[in-house]
Amino acid sequence: MAYNIVLIEPEIPTNTGNIGRLSLASGSSLHLVKPFGFELSDSRVKRAGLDYWQHISLHIYESTEEFFTAHQNEKMAFLSSHGTKTHYEIDFEDGMFLVFGKESSGLSQQITENNEERLFTIPMYSEHIRSLNLANAVSIVVYEGLRSIR
Amino acid sequence: MAYNIVLIEPEIPTNTGNIGRLSLASGSSLHLVKPFGFELSDSRVKRAGLDYWQHISLHIYESTEEFFTAHQNEKMAFLSSHGTKTHYEIDFEDGMFLVFGKESSGLSQQITENNEERLFTIPMYSEHIRSLNLANAVSIVVYEGLRSIR
Repeated sequence: MAYNIVLIEPEIPTNTGNIGRLSLASGSSLHLVKPFGFELSDSRVKRAGLDYWQHISLHIYESTEEFFTAHQNEKMAFLSSHGTKTHYEIDFEDGMFLVFGKESSGLSQQITENNEERLFTIPMYSEHIRSLNLANAVSIVVYEGLRSIR
Repeated sequence: MAYNIVLIEPEIPTNTGNIGRLSLASGSSLHLVKPFGFELSDSRVKRAGLDYWQHISLHIYESTEEFFTAHQNEKMAFLSSHGTKTHYEIDFEDGMFLVFGKESSGLSQQITENNEERLFTIPMYSEHIRSLNLANAVSIVVYEGLRSIR
């Protein structure tokens, strides 16, 4: 498994489905942290993830606390529009955790404040836009990581 | 405008909406080639593209032939699961055209055969999966291009 993709409190089922497909394609594990904005059994999750959902290496956590307790010693990078370094500057390492917040508001203030030194952002080239679709953002970061450790 | 993103006969409105958002975020122009699998006025296109749709540099073509006639002298890369080179090998150049096929079946056989030397694929790391969501694929390629010409 190349990377561990972490979605904290995802809200939109098709995004999680598409990220499941991306996880599988990229050889990553997928970690989903509750509460979700949908039921994991929602047909839109599996439809976006196509017929491959059962092959995904999937881990579910009841809360953010449970996730951080389970993985406190792991190397992590946090993706946020508040990051001051770009995702091209992540020091990728096989097996590291790439952590993404919810679609509507990103990572919580507590998480961004606790992880200021490892907060990264995808650069934007328009004054009209501040963020990308979550599944697109995950895709960009994971494939940059795959390039850099090839 | 860094790149020209081309979608030939896109089928799913939320993908086109998300790619519109990506176009704007990445400073790219978006070229859409008919027939589409939806109406461009579909609320799902604009919802996925958020409130930014009106800022996108958007070009519409009535047919594939019209597109290729208009841009026959431009530098292009074609993305296809049939490509033998990876997207990391694209010789990115400011203003080049990045061409993607439809969600269900990718680029037509005629297009892939006419462009064998400039056909690229995103590497997959699972035997269970052959392609990514279209918007995710476009995101990966465009941000790889932005990295390489920074």
